[in-house]
Amino acid sequence: METGMTERIAGLKSAAPLVAAMKAEEKNRALNNIAEELYNRRSEVFAANELDLAQAARDEIPSPIYKRLKFDEHKLNDVIEGINALVKLDDPVGREMLKTELDTGLVLQKVSCPIGVIGVIFESRPDALVQISTLCLKSGNAVIVKGGSEAKNTNRILSEIIKTAACKGTGLPENWIVPCETRAEIGDLLAMDRYIDLLIPRGSNEFIRYIMDNTKIPVMGHADGICHCFADESADEKMTQEIVVDAKTQYVAVCNALETLLVHEGAAASLLPATVSALLDKGVEVRGCRKTIEILEGATTAGASGATAVGASGEVDAADAADKASSMAYGIVPACDADWETEYLDNVISVKIVSGIDEAVSHINMYGSHHTDSIITNNKQNAEKFMLLVDSANVFLNCSTRFSDGLRYGFGAEVGISTGKLHARGPVGLDGLVSYKYLLYGKGHIVSDYSEKRRFFTHKKL
Amino acid sequence: METGMTERIAGLKSAAPLVAAMKAEEKNRALNNIAEELYNRRSEVFAANELDLAQAARDEIPSPIYKRLKFDEHKLNDVIEGINALVKLDDPVGREMLKTELDTGLVLQKVSCPIGVIGVIFESRPDALVQISTLCLKSGNAVIVKGGSEAKNTNRILSEIIKTAACKGTGLPENWIVPCETRAEIGDLLAMDRYIDLLIPRGSNEFIRYIMDNTKIPVMGHADGICHCFADESADEKMTQEIVVDAKTQYVAVCNALETLLVHEGAAASLLPATVSALLDKGVEVRGCRKTIEILEGATTAGASGATAVGASGEVDAADAADKASSMAYGIVPACDADWETEYLDNVISVKIVSGIDEAVSHINMYGSHHTDSIITNNKQNAEKFMLLVDSANVFLNCSTRFSDGLRYGFGAEVGISTGKLHARGPVGLDGLVSYKYLLYGKGHIVSDYSEKRRFFTHKKL
Repeated sequence: METGMTERIAGLKSAAPLVAAMKAEEKNRALNNIAEELYNRRSEVFAANELDLAQAARDEIPSPIYKRLKFDEHKLNDVIEGINALVKLDDPVGREMLKTELDTGLVLQKVSCPIGVIGVIFESRPDALVQISTLCLKSGNAVIVKGGSEAKNTNRILSEIIKTAACKGTGLPENWIVPCETRAEIGDLLAMDRYIDLLIPRGSNEFIRYIMDNTKIPVMGHADGICHCFADESADEKMTQEIVVDAKTQYVAVCNALETLLVHEGAAASLLPATVSALLDKGVEVRGCRKTIEILEGATTAGASGATAVGASGEVDAADAADKASSMAYGIVPACDADWETEYLDNVISVKIVSGIDEAVSHINMYGSHHTDSIITNNKQNAEKFMLLVDSANVFLNCSTRFSDGLRYGFGAEVGISTGKLHARGPVGLDGLVSYKYLLYGKGHIVSDYSEKRRFFTHKKL
Repeated sequence: METGMTERIAGLKSAAPLVAAMKAEEKNRALNNIAEELYNRRSEVFAANELDLAQAARDEIPSPIYKRLKFDEHKLNDVIEGINALVKLDDPVGREMLKTELDTGLVLQKVSCPIGVIGVIFESRPDALVQISTLCLKSGNAVIVKGGSEAKNTNRILSEIIKTAACKGTGLPENWIVPCETRAEIGDLLAMDRYIDLLIPRGSNEFIRYIMDNTKIPVMGHADGICHCFADESADEKMTQEIVVDAKTQYVAVCNALETLLVHEGAAASLLPATVSALLDKGVEVRGCRKTIEILEGATTAGASGATAVGASGEVDAADAADKASSMAYGIVPACDADWETEYLDNVISVKIVSGIDEAVSHINMYGSHHTDSIITNNKQNAEKFMLLVDSANVFLNCSTRFSDGLRYGFGAEVGISTGKLHARGPVGLDGLVSYKYLLYGKGHIVSDYSEKRRFFTHKKL
């Protein structure tokens, strides 16, 4: 272990209760200081970022990483705006969640409190450092920030600014934040379950999975986002097309993008052609199950032979459907089993015909990642069944999976989206960074008085 | 892996959403059935338990385990009473926690829901099987119960009764509960992170620690209960003595029993003699730090030489204190470093003199197990400081650590006490067995309308 690392983390651990005890006004003053200093010292930040960018160019790192690495005027404005919004949010600490008189003079309180020490490990993006460390500060947590080595100059100046600005006249202990730089330190961090209460990794799926698999510290995050849309028998054709196209193509590289479309077999002939055609038009590769391919080919043949391929809704004209199908039948790739559990994060979608709502729900619960799944239907009973039985953090009716997001939900600052079911689930705001504790105020009360029936509990809600 | 094990757990996993969807009345009917059948078939249960007890006697198992293994009329009444109380509690599932209109026709709900599949692994006590499986049922979770092999006959008949009674006319799927019998199956369970959402182990510290160290499944429980009392400078002598004796001796084998007493150095001379004397009278072995021993010896000497050993409170007569001290000075054992991190669960206490509130808080946060810690003081400022800075699930003022308990807190049925800070902390009731999900009801809403500013979020609280 690197010299000084354990000492620094132990120092942070002992500072944590003092960070936890900070008053809301002091934390907000610290946040305002940070925003101000980031702006005042922006030229230093940009200069440091130039060094990292130059090195990245020499190392020929992939262009998406290069893009994420860039910290310019635009990114600076974003993080400052984020800090200003954070200042305005209610303090998540010290909220009274319960107050009970257990007996005369014996009062129990349940009060929200910070988690303690949070380790944030992220790839590339230096703006994530600012965002998460300020979220931790607002929620009274001490924080360890480990950024990607490709951003080391930017991260160094950012954490220096954040650390000194936050402490200026606020009473915040100096070691409320510990930056780590070297890759070797990740292994050390993962082993520090004695000191670190929670890890928040930010980066690729492989990266997050690696963290989860190599530590005993609780991890908040999601490794996969295999999101589904199920177009039920009664789904409106236009709505299906619009939702599927939005969910799949509006932004492909995010966890709440659509990966698998399930279609009710009774409506496949009417729903599929237009939707698949729209996806192909957007440049999406479509991987279909055997039935999907048969239906699309069938629609073509049916159109040619004049047979009817009218869907259950009766709204679709067979010839029209066949026209659409014929133009793309050869563009569909057969899906294999692995497709049902793949998060493409790309212009690819898998399509499966199911026998109805029950198979749709089973498929989603079996192959999905419990992130976000949506049903498109006009059948109220099926809608409620889907909402009830799908075991995901976000379950939607007649809307795009892309809505699962803290800002869209109106939560303000977002820590991330959790697919774990314990603690925080779904989009996680400041609430996910606090725990609670029970405070019991007595006047000499002892348990033997109650076990020997000299006194009795009243349990009066206050 | 035992043949059929994976299939049984997979069957349970697919039944879980159906269990989750059960209506409150159905779940209560199932619980009433269980209570009724346990009573009706009690002679079968007692007979099975006799077999286990006979085997235990042949195996010469230790008497505490033998006691826990016993399932008699008394234990039966307890579990039936527990089930009746559980029926009366509000359904923890389907509680609306938030409702927001994101835009016209687009409504977000946050609703409590079961966690899914819970694995319960416990040693010896067959009553724990009844207690936890009914708690899981009430909270809509599917459950795997793995009892100790020494209770296998009792567990087998109990789980058979619970399973069949619960399903009778309630619509509960038969595989809502899967009993496991062999020790080898524990290893299998620990590896099933794909199927099991939460593990609740019940048993010795070593057992719980083993579970925590050998699985990727989240574990709810506590491994240690190293609880402290800190007697501050202004602590009342009588109150200190009563609280310390209650916390240490009222029931030594439980996690919220006192293990370490910290005493302010300014009050040690007045507080220690009476308290230590009372502990020794109760047969408690006292392990003191160097200063503790010096002070008690000093009090003896002072008493003998006629010098004053009056404490800060001025309430203690030196000669009186010396009398008490002289009778026990030789009875105090020197404490070593390991004592500060030992949970005795026995008639042993460690005592340390500290320089004041800051050292007390640091010691507790460093050596404690974040379970329950109490301050005895008349100083309001120190009380608030302690409540704020001690990083434990339960932080108490002027009362016994033994109060940290779900029944005493008025929570009804208790799952256990958690020292983890994520999800549930402190005494955990039904609330600890539920998660939540976000439901979004739309009418064809898509994200690109918002990102391209054709529509705007309203975020109206409903």
